[in-house]
Amino acid sequence: MKFSELLKKLSASITQHSLNTAESTDLELWGIDAIDRAEAGMLSYIEGPKFAAYVEKTAASALILPVDETLQTQATQRGIAWLSTPQPRLVFAEAIGLFYQPFRPAPSIHPSAIIDPNTTIGDQVYIGPHVVIQAGVTIGDGVCIHPNVTIYPDVQIGSRTILHASCTIHERSQIGADCVIHSGAVIGAEGFGFVPTAEGWFKMQQSGVTVLEDGVEVGCNSTIDRPAVGETRIQKNTKLDNLVHIGHGCRVGENCALAAQVGLAGGVVVGNQVILAGQVGVANQAKIGDKAIATAQAGIHSNVKAGEIVSDSPAIPNKLYLKISAIRKRLPEIYKTIKELQRQLNDHQ
Amino acid sequence: MKFSELLKKLSASITQHSLNTAESTDLELWGIDAIDRAEAGMLSYIEGPKFAAYVEKTAASALILPVDETLQTQATQRGIAWLSTPQPRLVFAEAIGLFYQPFRPAPSIHPSAIIDPNTTIGDQVYIGPHVVIQAGVTIGDGVCIHPNVTIYPDVQIGSRTILHASCTIHERSQIGADCVIHSGAVIGAEGFGFVPTAEGWFKMQQSGVTVLEDGVEVGCNSTIDRPAVGETRIQKNTKLDNLVHIGHGCRVGENCALAAQVGLAGGVVVGNQVILAGQVGVANQAKIGDKAIATAQAGIHSNVKAGEIVSDSPAIPNKLYLKISAIRKRLPEIYKTIKELQRQLNDHQ
Amino acid sequence: MKFSELLKKLSASITQHSLNTAESTDLELWGIDAIDRAEAGMLSYIEGPKFAAYVEKTAASALILPVDETLQTQATQRGIAWLSTPQPRLVFAEAIGLFYQPFRPAPSIHPSAIIDPNTTIGDQVYIGPHVVIQAGVTIGDGVCIHPNVTIYPDVQIGSRTILHASCTIHERSQIGADCVIHSGAVIGAEGFGFVPTAEGWFKMQQSGVTVLEDGVEVGCNSTIDRPAVGETRIQKNTKLDNLVHIGHGCRVGENCALAAQVGLAGGVVVGNQVILAGQVGVANQAKIGDKAIATAQAGIHSNVKAGEIVSDSPAIPNKLYLKISAIRKRLPEIYKTIKELQRQLNDHQ
Repeated sequence: MKFSELLKKLSASITQHSLNTAESTDLELWGIDAIDRAEAGMLSYIEGPKFAAYVEKTAASALILPVDETLQTQATQRGIAWLSTPQPRLVFAEAIGLFYQPFRPAPSIHPSAIIDPNTTIGDQVYIGPHVVIQAGVTIGDGVCIHPNVTIYPDVQIGSRTILHASCTIHERSQIGADCVIHSGAVIGAEGFGFVPTAEGWFKMQQSGVTVLEDGVEVGCNSTIDRPAVGETRIQKNTKLDNLVHIGHGCRVGENCALAAQVGLAGGVVVGNQVILAGQVGVANQAKIGDKAIATAQAGIHSNVKAGEIVSDSPAIPNKLYLKISAIRKRLPEIYKTIKELQRQLNDHQ
Repeated sequence: MKFSELLKKLSASITQHSLNTAESTDLELWGIDAIDRAEAGMLSYIEGPKFAAYVEKTAASALILPVDETLQTQATQRGIAWLSTPQPRLVFAEAIGLFYQPFRPAPSIHPSAIIDPNTTIGDQVYIGPHVVIQAGVTIGDGVCIHPNVTIYPDVQIGSRTILHASCTIHERSQIGADCVIHSGAVIGAEGFGFVPTAEGWFKMQQSGVTVLEDGVEVGCNSTIDRPAVGETRIQKNTKLDNLVHIGHGCRVGENCALAAQVGLAGGVVVGNQVILAGQVGVANQAKIGDKAIATAQAGIHSNVKAGEIVSDSPAIPNKLYLKISAIRKRLPEIYKTIKELQRQLNDHQ
Repeated sequence: MKFSELLKKLSASITQHSLNTAESTDLELWGIDAIDRAEAGMLSYIEGPKFAAYVEKTAASALILPVDETLQTQATQRGIAWLSTPQPRLVFAEAIGLFYQPFRPAPSIHPSAIIDPNTTIGDQVYIGPHVVIQAGVTIGDGVCIHPNVTIYPDVQIGSRTILHASCTIHERSQIGADCVIHSGAVIGAEGFGFVPTAEGWFKMQQSGVTVLEDGVEVGCNSTIDRPAVGETRIQKNTKLDNLVHIGHGCRVGENCALAAQVGLAGGVVVGNQVILAGQVGVANQAKIGDKAIATAQAGIHSNVKAGEIVSDSPAIPNKLYLKISAIRKRLPEIYKTIKELQRQLNDHQ
């Protein structure tokens, strides 16, 4: 792709950000890679001035730069074509999509797929080998179902949604449009509902449903259970990483991001634009406000206010946590001080 | 279902608890849902007096109540049929089973299933599409094997056990009657056994077996390994949630509940009726006594006594943990106090 | 197997360790088990003198012992044949392999497997029922692919590698020779790459690849993502347990061991011979030096030096952690002391 063409396509897609393009030969670019891996003829990027040293040594022929005159001059002096933007990472993401498109099989239904006659299948659908689709299922237009997927009865799958290999969609689940369910994920299985009795656990049937709204992405081998009654719901455009567990009856708001190995117990309510970092756990019924952030491994046992940043287990405000972490390292020394104080005071008396 | 019929069926199933039924029109109920979601004609429940406000506004036509006169009067005044019980949650669980039965395919063997001729298959068995059953496997009566399941050689599956989609049962595993293995779970795979040598890791073959006794439930994408020698055993009626890991050679007692993302390292011994909350980890060879409880994210490195409640990592008695958590929040203030004491004492001298 | 034969085979395989075989009847051994489970005619082992009591009561007919005269005499007196070695656990591992070989299907390609014609399949390959292999895939000699596995396009699988049931290998992944991918694992799926914008998450296409070098083992339901650009790489002979997550762009060195439920965020760099115990989490871009060790549940947020042992979250040197853990338990008492000191000092003034 010509550099001029790249500029045109990128500026069209991110019109809200001004691309200040510098003069450059209209060179041909054949690929895109990280700054320390890019070869001649490739495009790369840096996020900010602290990566300036890379501009000095990269073999890349073109760069996406932050808005920074020094970096621009540096690139020009090395004969590197560049464009600058207040959001280099976003433009880099856009650019990757110009050089690379993920594997997407052509619409077709493999003869080895077992599809119940009582199903509704949209147009331009791909259904791979050994897929199983049971009665009462509705599949939207442009859906892509990779091999070995199992869909239980009465499931709805919205248009253009992608189901990767060996994932399982349980009975009555409703999956919106433009979702991605990664390999091995399990949607809508029975929640963990057992009532203790003198004779042991009594199994509560899980009559509820799991609903994923449009644009939701669920990572590999993640699990989203359905509840005894009511629904488990993941709202629009929320993204879940791998090995995440969402318990029965949770509601996760819009545009959230839950990193790998996060676990929500039952009935948790998460607001919009919430970020939970890796391995965070949230206890039963806890409520997390909009735009709250929990740092890695936090254990949330009670409600978190909107906008709050929490850390540690049990979770406390991040600022307090940072102070405590610093003090914690000095506990042995503090302990000595106290003993010394005690001694001094005793001597005194 | 008529309300009178409901009372009869519930009282039959929970004879050990007296149902004090109030006068009510013998109304027809068509469904069951949570108190804040139930519509007219539906049954719901509340667990205790703290949910009294819901009784005032629910649209439910019938309620399962705790034994509480105020609540009963409240319901009567709103024209809501009710029954009361010391265990509302249990009766609600029973009632769900009257209105809802989980999807259960009729007995049949799908022609796309690949079943080794050298297997023993019981009566009234369902084997779904694309299931693979290898040589030497024995399947009990009434077993239900959902699509895309793989069973390695010489496995035994007890009567009425359910294997959900894409789960894998490894060679020589023994699974009891009335078990449920949820989608994607892996039973009896090789334990993580590597001996360090000067040349790197030496792989210890895993010749042992995994045994699940009757009534065990294993959550989606959970993994229970087999050991080098001997067995990994999950005893009767123990329930494991999703994404749980049980290492090689563990023994988990009867009627335990292990919540999502719990991990047991190798050779852990867990007593009966133990509860491990979400994301708890247990180190190699640790022993946990009967009826012990570990709260979420606890890290158990040494033995836990019967009946003990432990928290934190490394795990300590829960009561001590609660005290420490309270003090922990005041560490910055405590630190200042110490510095102040030091200053005062120095001034003194 | 005759005891003399066992000695010969073991001494051949572990020539670097001298086996000091004692006089013994050349008995026939039919199996191998743990010291507390072994029956007459079986071989077992103990790791060190602290297990001496077991030698007194075991029913085993032969024992692998550490180099310890007391234990040797003890065994002789009970008529137990024995061999001793500085590495009893390693020799035991060797011996298991003499009595037990894991299930390994004979080379063959099942007719229900769907294999794209545009693939290269080596000699002596086993491809099980319902396996799906897409275009551009190369499979080495002696590879074993268990049922229900899915391989996306353009994947390379090295010789003798084993893919267990229902695992998924995504497009362009490169897997070396002698690897084992356990059931349900997902290799090379899209990394969790979303750029925040005013309109929500912008998906960064993941054009990179995942590379597993020779001898890598990946546990059940573990996930190793591919990055936006560049590669995620697991180097030679590194072993991953179950439910491990490796984020996009990580590099894990040679001969590491990552225990169950470990999670690495994006771009983490791990040296050689590193050990991460269960449920350890590592934050974005952190670097861990050669031979470092992180104890269970550690949360690593910044770089760890070669050889360092770290614990806790955020991770600190293990020695400091042990001191702090001891002091932590006395925090309530310390708090009282401080209050008392304050009171005394006030009385003084």
